[in-house]
Amino acid sequence: MRRVLVTGASGFVGRHTLPLLVDAGFDVHAVSRGPAVTEHVNWHQADLLEVDTPARLVSEIEPSHLLHLAWFTEPGAYWTSVDNVRWLEASLRLIRAFAAEGRRAVIAGSCAEYDWSHGVCSEERTPLRPDSLYGTCKNSLRAVLERLAVEAGFSAAWGRIFYLYGPGEHPERLVPSVIRSLLRGEPVGCTSGRQIRDYLHVADAASAFVRLLDGEVVGAVNIASGEPVAVRRLLLTIGEIIGAPELLRFGEVEMRVNEPPLLVADVRRIFQEVGCCATHDLQSGLLDTVRWWSRHEAALVPKRTSATPIDAEGSEAAASPPLQ
Amino acid sequence: MRRVLVTGASGFVGRHTLPLLVDAGFDVHAVSRGPAVTEHVNWHQADLLEVDTPARLVSEIEPSHLLHLAWFTEPGAYWTSVDNVRWLEASLRLIRAFAAEGRRAVIAGSCAEYDWSHGVCSEERTPLRPDSLYGTCKNSLRAVLERLAVEAGFSAAWGRIFYLYGPGEHPERLVPSVIRSLLRGEPVGCTSGRQIRDYLHVADAASAFVRLLDGEVVGAVNIASGEPVAVRRLLLTIGEIIGAPELLRFGEVEMRVNEPPLLVADVRRIFQEVGCCATHDLQSGLLDTVRWWSRHEAALVPKRTSATPIDAEGSEAAASPPLQ
Repeated sequence: MRRVLVTGASGFVGRHTLPLLVDAGFDVHAVSRGPAVTEHVNWHQADLLEVDTPARLVSEIEPSHLLHLAWFTEPGAYWTSVDNVRWLEASLRLIRAFAAEGRRAVIAGSCAEYDWSHGVCSEERTPLRPDSLYGTCKNSLRAVLERLAVEAGFSAAWGRIFYLYGPGEHPERLVPSVIRSLLRGEPVGCTSGRQIRDYLHVADAASAFVRLLDGEVVGAVNIASGEPVAVRRLLLTIGEIIGAPELLRFGEVEMRVNEPPLLVADVRRIFQEVGCCATHDLQSGLLDTVRWWSRHEAALVPKRTSATPIDAEGSEAAASPPLQ
Repeated sequence: MRRVLVTGASGFVGRHTLPLLVDAGFDVHAVSRGPAVTEHVNWHQADLLEVDTPARLVSEIEPSHLLHLAWFTEPGAYWTSVDNVRWLEASLRLIRAFAAEGRRAVIAGSCAEYDWSHGVCSEERTPLRPDSLYGTCKNSLRAVLERLAVEAGFSAAWGRIFYLYGPGEHPERLVPSVIRSLLRGEPVGCTSGRQIRDYLHVADAASAFVRLLDGEVVGAVNIASGEPVAVRRLLLTIGEIIGAPELLRFGEVEMRVNEPPLLVADVRRIFQEVGCCATHDLQSGLLDTVRWWSRHEAALVPKRTSATPIDAEGSEAAASPPLQ
């Protein structure tokens, strides 16, 4: 019997993994602070930051597999917040409890673990030199996981997420905030957009995690598309889909000092060893995402009212998105 | 007012720091699971592994300084035990509580954080590639400490201990076990002893930690003597002091596979930047240590009884040590 404990189950990546885990034949036990987002899995509403929760969940569920996606991810704050240390502590308690009987663990890491001056990040060759408390705590968890797995005799892999996009992302992150502004017909101040990144659709990321969990590859694996794109191109694609590329004001915002010009993933491990493939190209994935936000925003604001400010440069027409 | 919270206060290094901290003008609050070892400081008997203890101690004591020396150190077991993860968790809770108001933290690290294939370990140049759960957990704590200090605005240093010796060491570690065997007149099986190490007297290590705490140097600092010695020479010095070098049987024990031929410290930071100096040379330090064990063993076994086995090759004469 393969029974998986999934944390962060109602999160951006987590909720996409649930049907895939069921399809893969797992008895799925989802953990989240919030109420169930699906009826097709066992739902455990619990706060992993409460000290006794990790051990209690492992004891109750007796999972053979662990997919640990939960972390503190509040946009802006998550790079430097001391909550990263609390999540590191909770994660250590979780893997320590799991180690006693568990067989296979997969945990979400981040490209923030790498030394970004290297540009192309390889699991084998790129130095790990996180430049943030977030990246430091993730990298520390990875190091302990890998070593504990050896000592306790379970199998462990570590999925390093690069840049994601897709339905359900936090509205303040780049792609949703641009989509929402353009849908409202508001201009968007952007950097030059010349920085090159790897963007992966969240459904493909979820699929990669499930495949990783279901396999035997150990160690770090980049979770990425392998298709470098300039942020300018990414945003222009959104602008073209919505029909308002002229609202993107490139160069209005200064690039952050530590923003590297190139930050992309070596994807040989995830494609060749894990056997994943990205099913969404950027055009279709962004179309999908814009449609989701059109429905979502329309549901939140069924009618334009005076409570919804409209930028002087915006227009009512643009606020009724063409794709709805 | 400078008030220091010292953990591991009754431990090998910790107990030597207490009078030095008092001399340096600190209001000393010592934490240990055991009862007070001195009346000259405030003693808090507490178990840091209990979840609420770190925050409670910090809240009660309101320390401006933290000297965190406590860890799981059971000989043999400490390299691989999952208790390393528990100590990492407890230490994270401690520094998180301290970060809110604290000004300066110094924590004990280990040469086990370094890639041992480099031989001479430099804080600046030698890669950190721990090959044990112990080294991994220590190195993870260091990384989080350094980053949290930046975010929370306190000053932090990390003292990487190499090899220590001196009064009060755990009886099963190399120097005490050899001294005790030779004092009993028992032969001791040893490796070839050709491996070269850096041995520092525990009182000098304690002095280095206090000076580090009392200063402003940040980051990792090797705590070592800077005097490489072959283990064979170290043990022969003990044998000569006790007057029984012939009981040392070099070559009887296989060297461990991952035992590096050379593992010594670059001591420029500790000597030049922190301003320490080793006051014990190996001859005087080992003499000191042999004397301590002579008194200690004599106190434990005031008279030789049949319950104390004497090796066929030993002698009653050797069991009554010449230095007592």
